Amino acid sequence: MNKITLDAARIIVREALDHGVKARMKPLSVAVVDAGGHLIAFERSDGAPVGRFELAFGKAHGSVMLGIGGTAQRDRAEAQAYFIAAANAAYSGKLVPVPGGFVVRNAAGDVVGGVGVTGDTSENDMAAGEAGIVAAGLVAEG
Amino acid sequence: MNKITLDAARIIVREALDHGVKARMKPLSVAVVDAGGHLIAFERSDGAPVGRFELAFGKAHGSVMLGIGGTAQRDRAEAQAYFIAAANAAYSGKLVPVPGGFVVRNAAGDVVGGVGVTGDTSENDMAAGEAGIVAAGLVAEG
Amino acid sequence: MNKITLDAARIIVREALDHGVKARMKPLSVAVVDAGGHLIAFERSDGAPVGRFELAFGKAHGSVMLGIGGTAQRDRAEAQAYFIAAANAAYSGKLVPVPGGFVVRNAAGDVVGGVGVTGDTSENDMAAGEAGIVAAGLVAEG
Amino acid sequence: MNKITLDAARIIVREALDHGVKARMKPLSVAVVDAGGHLIAFERSDGAPVGRFELAFGKAHGSVMLGIGGTAQRDRAEAQAYFIAAANAAYSGKLVPVPGGFVVRNAAGDVVGGVGVTGDTSENDMAAGEAGIVAAGLVAEG
Repeated sequence: MNKITLDAARIIVREALDHGVKARMKPLSVAVVDAGGHLIAFERSDGAPVGRFELAFGKAHGSVMLGIGGTAQRDRAEAQAYFIAAANAAYSGKLVPVPGGFVVRNAAGDVVGGVGVTGDTSENDMAAGEAGIVAAGLVAEG
Repeated sequence: MNKITLDAARIIVREALDHGVKARMKPLSVAVVDAGGHLIAFERSDGAPVGRFELAFGKAHGSVMLGIGGTAQRDRAEAQAYFIAAANAAYSGKLVPVPGGFVVRNAAGDVVGGVGVTGDTSENDMAAGEAGIVAAGLVAEG
Repeated sequence: MNKITLDAARIIVREALDHGVKARMKPLSVAVVDAGGHLIAFERSDGAPVGRFELAFGKAHGSVMLGIGGTAQRDRAEAQAYFIAAANAAYSGKLVPVPGGFVVRNAAGDVVGGVGVTGDTSENDMAAGEAGIVAAGLVAEG
Repeated sequence: MNKITLDAARIIVREALDHGVKARMKPLSVAVVDAGGHLIAFERSDGAPVGRFELAFGKAHGSVMLGIGGTAQRDRAEAQAYFIAAANAAYSGKLVPVPGGFVVRNAAGDVVGGVGVTGDTSENDMAAGEAGIVAAGLVAEG
């Protein structure tokens, strides 16, 4: 699979949301973007705050644009905050540098897109995102 | 129903996309927003250009912000282009004034959100959106 | 009075809204800005679309920034659309060039602020705004 | 009450401002937004700096978008500054993460809007906002 189809994006979104429900997490929101950082699919769970799209999309988009997942972005932000602040401005605010953002690769290791999950703790957001990406037969770099 | 639940949003998106497939339209994209113009769900069909989110969201968001659907926005734009241009700027570009944008009301007539469909002709975008909104038991103001 | 006090702004807002109710207009929204275009007061009537602040404020702010009311802005837009489009961009979208925007002057003729009314026809928006401004003992340039 | 009416918003604004006057605070400004973060009402006291709207609105809007009040936002900013900086950019600067920002709930616990108060110390801004929200029969999450 050299790109994330809509069918694959639906699997990612649904599995991530289902993972959150089963694990009794707070209401999650999930964004899936293509290899250019453009939105393919998004869903916000009932009960989540209204501003979730911007955060989920920012995690997914920023991961693709920088080529590193949310955990690595957080580490960079803690070591060198001004770099992440500058990247954020360069990407017009479409970057949210915390866990829950993923670069998504296919089996060959090519970047095929990104995923952003938001709503619970960083660890839980990550677990839900990984569940979705793996269910779609793809590789998560969180 | 005083708000669009995620289940309802999924029905709107799926029925609109299915309508497009059955009617042999070009690949459609559909955005559903709440009564504040915030994204609940979005899907972009395989084969659609990468910039579809901004157009579908702009149709949905602009309809909610102005309180009128895409057809009325188009008529206003043709009569008074500078007003729609100014509204577009006031809403930071999140307004796409053509058919395919809908204000969505419940049976009581309250605005519960907006929908934006893009990908084919204005008439076809409208037909697909109406199919989705009606399938969710809601009222489309296109 | 060399500036619009909060008491004066309240009179403008209330009288304009009351005028709309008595004349059976659609639900109005009213913004009052100072001589620098900065917001002093705003109210949105129940039942108005959610995006009314941007339009009312744009009318008030644009009137102060350009030094001419909404009617003169509309005339300029119809004669020379690209100038108003450029001004709109220069003011970051905070300009809505239609009647309902007012430059507000004191008895001495000094600019003390601006008012923007939106919600009904241009003529009705203007009538409501004038009612408010006159009630505050100020002069409306619409 | 499943939404903040204009009458309720007026009570919030007036009670918060009156609280400030009685407690001899500096001139306050108060913004009230709906559950989508859109402005319902705003007033700036005489003597306050001209840039108060952006701060009061940012407190109210950011609280609704993130679903947490200003105190929780401040705590998050102090623990993880880059996250709040990223959220700020994602919301186009409409987020001011300090006390004085409130999520507003009805008796059933539903989010019905947000309030932002600015002008004095964080503690005083909070006290004034709570006075206004409680006077309107609503619940303040500061």
